[in-house]
Amino acid sequence: MEDSRHRPIITLTTDFGLADHYVGTMKGVLLSRCPDAQLVDISHEIPPFSIWAGAYTIDQAAPFFAPKTVHLVVVDPGVGTSRKPILAEALGQYFIAPDNGVLSLVLRRHSNSTVREITRRDLWLESVSATFHGRDLFAPSAAAIASGMVKPDEVGPKLPRPELLPEIDPVETEPHVWRGKVLSIDRFGNVITSLGRNQFPQIHSQAFLLSVGQYEIRNFRETFGAARAGELFAYFGSSGYIEIAVNQQNAAKQLEAYPGMDVYLRLL
Amino acid sequence: MEDSRHRPIITLTTDFGLADHYVGTMKGVLLSRCPDAQLVDISHEIPPFSIWAGAYTIDQAAPFFAPKTVHLVVVDPGVGTSRKPILAEALGQYFIAPDNGVLSLVLRRHSNSTVREITRRDLWLESVSATFHGRDLFAPSAAAIASGMVKPDEVGPKLPRPELLPEIDPVETEPHVWRGKVLSIDRFGNVITSLGRNQFPQIHSQAFLLSVGQYEIRNFRETFGAARAGELFAYFGSSGYIEIAVNQQNAAKQLEAYPGMDVYLRLL
Amino acid sequence: MEDSRHRPIITLTTDFGLADHYVGTMKGVLLSRCPDAQLVDISHEIPPFSIWAGAYTIDQAAPFFAPKTVHLVVVDPGVGTSRKPILAEALGQYFIAPDNGVLSLVLRRHSNSTVREITRRDLWLESVSATFHGRDLFAPSAAAIASGMVKPDEVGPKLPRPELLPEIDPVETEPHVWRGKVLSIDRFGNVITSLGRNQFPQIHSQAFLLSVGQYEIRNFRETFGAARAGELFAYFGSSGYIEIAVNQQNAAKQLEAYPGMDVYLRLL
Repeated sequence: MEDSRHRPIITLTTDFGLADHYVGTMKGVLLSRCPDAQLVDISHEIPPFSIWAGAYTIDQAAPFFAPKTVHLVVVDPGVGTSRKPILAEALGQYFIAPDNGVLSLVLRRHSNSTVREITRRDLWLESVSATFHGRDLFAPSAAAIASGMVKPDEVGPKLPRPELLPEIDPVETEPHVWRGKVLSIDRFGNVITSLGRNQFPQIHSQAFLLSVGQYEIRNFRETFGAARAGELFAYFGSSGYIEIAVNQQNAAKQLEAYPGMDVYLRLL
Repeated sequence: MEDSRHRPIITLTTDFGLADHYVGTMKGVLLSRCPDAQLVDISHEIPPFSIWAGAYTIDQAAPFFAPKTVHLVVVDPGVGTSRKPILAEALGQYFIAPDNGVLSLVLRRHSNSTVREITRRDLWLESVSATFHGRDLFAPSAAAIASGMVKPDEVGPKLPRPELLPEIDPVETEPHVWRGKVLSIDRFGNVITSLGRNQFPQIHSQAFLLSVGQYEIRNFRETFGAARAGELFAYFGSSGYIEIAVNQQNAAKQLEAYPGMDVYLRLL
Repeated sequence: MEDSRHRPIITLTTDFGLADHYVGTMKGVLLSRCPDAQLVDISHEIPPFSIWAGAYTIDQAAPFFAPKTVHLVVVDPGVGTSRKPILAEALGQYFIAPDNGVLSLVLRRHSNSTVREITRRDLWLESVSATFHGRDLFAPSAAAIASGMVKPDEVGPKLPRPELLPEIDPVETEPHVWRGKVLSIDRFGNVITSLGRNQFPQIHSQAFLLSVGQYEIRNFRETFGAARAGELFAYFGSSGYIEIAVNQQNAAKQLEAYPGMDVYLRLL
C-alpha cells in the first residue's frame, strides 16, 4: 500500500473551527514546506479545549490511515505556557501535538510507541507568536517530518513520561463495578464511553446498570430501531465502545453529559 | 480534459457533519486504497437522513465534474438493514450510494444510466460494522473503482429497478395545476422546488399561484433587490428550478418548509 | 520552495457556508479546468456579505502561502449587478475577487500591486447565471490562471482605482485619538481591530482608553490567563492587531461589535 511515489499525508485535528482563517493559514505553512502533501481534515470542531474529545477523535481515525501518515493534533488550552510540543510514533505513523494528554488513547493502544519532545527551534517559523502555535510551531514541525527534511529521531530528546489523561482504562472500584469516562459526544448527541465492548460483551445479554450522573440506563439494544420512543439505551457503536443513545433524540443533553465525565457500569 | 496522468477524483456527500471523526476516517480508507485520489467534499451537512436534500445536492454538483469522477453519497437512514449498496453510471461518472432514492435526480436526468448492486464483499473492509457503512463498505468500494482495481461492471449484478423518490417530476393534478416537491433548503433559508424553470418559464410574465402548505406566493422577481422588504417571491435560481425567497429573511422558516414537502403551482 | 513540478495551489474564501453544494460545485469547475490543482479552503463561513471579514481573512492567510498561489475570494453582495470581477497581483500571488473592497487589506499591505478587470468572457462558463458567479465566472478564471492557460496580464485591462474599504488605516481624529475599525470577530467572540500592534506598541505599558460603541476598555493583558474573570481587556493577537477579549466569554456579544464598526483609541 505504501509507495515512495505517493504523496505524504498530513491530517489535521483541531478545535479551531472553520469560520476563521486559522486552519487555512496552517495549510499554507504545511504546503509551503511540504508542497506534495495530501492534506486531510479529521475535524476542526473538537469542542474548544476538550482534550478528551480530541484524544477520542484522533484515536478513532488514525487506524484507517496508511503507515507514515503524519497526524497534526492541536487542541491546546496551554498554548503560550511551558507545555511541551511532542512527536509520538505509533502504528507506524507520526503524531504531532502538545504534551497535554491529547494523544492518550493512541499511546495506550500502542504500548511500544515512542514520544519525543520537539526542541529543534530551527524547524519552526522564525517568529513564534504567543497564541498560534498551530501555525508557528506544530505545522512546520509536521511539514518537516512529512517532507523528510528531518528524521523523527532528530526532533529532540525522548520524553519518558508524556502527559496522559487520568483513568483512560476503566477502573474496578468495587466488585463488578467499573468506573469509566465519557470520551465524546457525537453530532446526534450520542454519548461515547471509554467502556470497551470487548471488555464488557456481557451487557448484550445480562442485566446491568449504567450510571451517568444521576441518570440510569438498564437497557441494551442491538439497533436504534429496536428501542422504544424516548428510551435511553446502551449499544455497541462503530467506535468499539459502549455508547448511549435515545432514538431520534439527543442523549447527551438529556444526561447532561460532557467529555471527561465519570460513568459507572455495574454488572448485575 | 481527461488525461491518464491525472489523479482520480472522489467526491463525498454525507449527512455526517464535520464535528465527528467520521468523514476523516472515510478519507483514511479512501487514501489507503487509492493513494492518488483527489478528494473533494460536496457537503457533509445534508440534513440528517434527508434523502431529498442529498439527491438534490449531488445532482447539482455532479455535472460540473470531469468524466470518470467517483461520487460517494452516504445519506443512509437504512444503515444496518437490508437496503442494497449500489453503483450507478451516469454522465460518464460513477455514483456509489445506498439504494434508497438518493440518486433519483441523477438517474432521472440521465435516462441511459446503469445501476448495479455492489455484492463483491471482497472490496469491503474485512469487518463491517452495523452502523458505519460509509467507512466499511461505501468508501472501499469507491476506492476500488477510482483506483481501477475493479471495473464498474464487476461489482455485482445489474439492478433493474433502483429505488426512486416519489414524484421527482412535477405531476399535473388538474388542468394548469402542478404538484412538485421541496427539494432542499439552502443556507439562507431559500426554498428550492422541483419545478423546473424550463418547464414553467411563463411564471416570469404571467399570473400564478404557488402554494406551500397554507402559504401562497404570487410574485415573481428577477432579483432579490427587486423585492419589497418582507415579500415572499419566486425566482429562477442558479439551480435551474423555481426557488422561493424573502429578501434578507429565511423563507423556509416562514413557510415551515422542509425537503420532500409538496408544493402546488397553479398557472392563472 | 517553488518548483515547476509542484501542483498549483488554489485557495477558496467565501461566505457560501458548507451545507449547500456551492463550494463543491466550484471545486468541480476548478478541477475540470485545472486537474492538477491543490485546493485549500481558507474559510466558507465568512459572515454573509461581510466584506470586512472577508478582507481580513484572506489578508491573514495569504502571506503563509507560496508564491504563485491563486486565491479565489467570493464575498459578493453585488452579484448580478455591474460590479467588476478583478485579478490582483500582490505578494507574488494572484487574487481573484469581485471589485468591492474585499481585497483592501491585501492591496494596502503591498503597495506595488497590480489590479486588472477580468473582461475575457471566453474564460468563463458558457452560460453565466445571475446569482452564482463563483461557479460561472470566478472559478473558471482562477483555473485559467492556475493552469497557465492565460497569463495574468491577458485577462483584461488594468483597473487604476479598485474599490477599497473606507479607512482601512487608522485615522488620527484629534491629537492622541485614533479611529479604527472592527475587522473581524473570531470563533470565540474575540474582536480583532484594525489598530496595528506595531503602530500602538505603547498600550502595552501606558494608559489608554479603547472605546467600542458605548463600552470602554482600559486594560492590556499579555495573556488570557492574566485577566480577571469577566474582565474586558486588549491584547496583541497572532493577527498583528490589537484584539479585545473577555477570558472564557464572548467579547463581541458583550460589546455588540460587528465587522466594519468604528473603534476609538485614546492614548493617555
